Amino acid sequence: MTIAIVGGTGPEGSGLALRWAQAGETVVIGSRDRERACRTAETLNPALPQEGGSSARAVAISGEENQAACQSAEIVVLTIPFSGHAEMLKSLKPALRPGQVLVDTTVPLAASIGGRSTRTLGVWQGSAAEQAAELVPDGVRVVAAFHNLSAEWLRLDGPVDCDVIVCSDDKQAAQKVRALARKIPGVRALDGGKLENARIVEQITALLIGFNIRHKGHSGIRITGLPRESYDI
Amino acid sequence: MTIAIVGGTGPEGSGLALRWAQAGETVVIGSRDRERACRTAETLNPALPQEGGSSARAVAISGEENQAACQSAEIVVLTIPFSGHAEMLKSLKPALRPGQVLVDTTVPLAASIGGRSTRTLGVWQGSAAEQAAELVPDGVRVVAAFHNLSAEWLRLDGPVDCDVIVCSDDKQAAQKVRALARKIPGVRALDGGKLENARIVEQITALLIGFNIRHKGHSGIRITGLPRESYDI
Repeated sequence: MTIAIVGGTGPEGSGLALRWAQAGETVVIGSRDRERACRTAETLNPALPQEGGSSARAVAISGEENQAACQSAEIVVLTIPFSGHAEMLKSLKPALRPGQVLVDTTVPLAASIGGRSTRTLGVWQGSAAEQAAELVPDGVRVVAAFHNLSAEWLRLDGPVDCDVIVCSDDKQAAQKVRALARKIPGVRALDGGKLENARIVEQITALLIGFNIRHKGHSGIRITGLPRESYDI
Repeated sequence: MTIAIVGGTGPEGSGLALRWAQAGETVVIGSRDRERACRTAETLNPALPQEGGSSARAVAISGEENQAACQSAEIVVLTIPFSGHAEMLKSLKPALRPGQVLVDTTVPLAASIGGRSTRTLGVWQGSAAEQAAELVPDGVRVVAAFHNLSAEWLRLDGPVDCDVIVCSDDKQAAQKVRALARKIPGVRALDGGKLENARIVEQITALLIGFNIRHKGHSGIRITGLPRESYDI
């Protein structure tokens, strides 16, 4: 299974790339600029485990221009600022095909139009993820996830102290993405219900950014009080 | 310090009443119907610790009509459905006075107008708490808190596995409410920033209700990744 990370040269995208490649997934970092994508991949690959104890390192992360990255992937993960969200989806349209899973991690922060990172913008469709669902070709399955996962945690070694809430109208695609989330050590993945619930999950990020600013931390969330099996379905 | 709980005959209000009285606070349960408030108080008082080991029980929870409850209190906590929120605040107006802290726990669930409990209504002011701020007399300090605290957890013995995010434009009032939150065993209280952030905290409840429905649990949230002292300020 190949995972394309559109906007993967940024901190969130490259953090996810690293963690998934460490878990054995094939990851393609996408960027508008292919050279830049390759350079990011090169900086990440040394952090991957070496294959079979030999001195040859498995090159699990590669770089591509965004459209090319999408063409080869079963799962396309969007890690871009909201300011470029709609435009990027329009430009990716020819590269996406039915059956693919598009994972949207985008948070419509007011910072994307020069406002505060602790506030969100109103999106006509309700959320960035629902905007994505409107812009992808028919048959592409949109899943919202990873909004609350700090890039700082991802780039460090060791487990991430955060749950990932996964929202989608496609149950199979959501399950696939929850399985992907669980490949990141420490992460528990939860069924957040329909895609419309991304409205809430996206906004939680603005709240977490507020905590980070006030307390100089890298906050995340855990959902408590659910039966253990809730995190394994 | 006396705490009035408006709508305190419901599960959230009586749960909070119980926990605060157990922590030694004087609590008045408010209801439209004074008799009903008194009956709820009578059912809660047997769960309070006995004073000084003597057989005489300290009656820490009493019942009052809502307005009368507010008049005697330094802190007024609103635990009512959103459907009655604006009307209740208008009716309380003569009983509220400058300097009092009004804690709003209200979540504008769509269920309050016959919709789903996993969806929220748009509130013109941005959140129930901001609506409250518009409706209270000048000088009443509005704080949003306790939205995500399950009534089920509150009515049980033992620690509550949930953080309380406290939002207010009045820093002193917010600090007072964080101290009150910490009197509930297990609860950590966090500075959620300005009152406008209640928009997000209120909505988290709808998400948690969705988890409860899907997984038959009583969910709460924990904020991770912050320095320890963030929970003690």
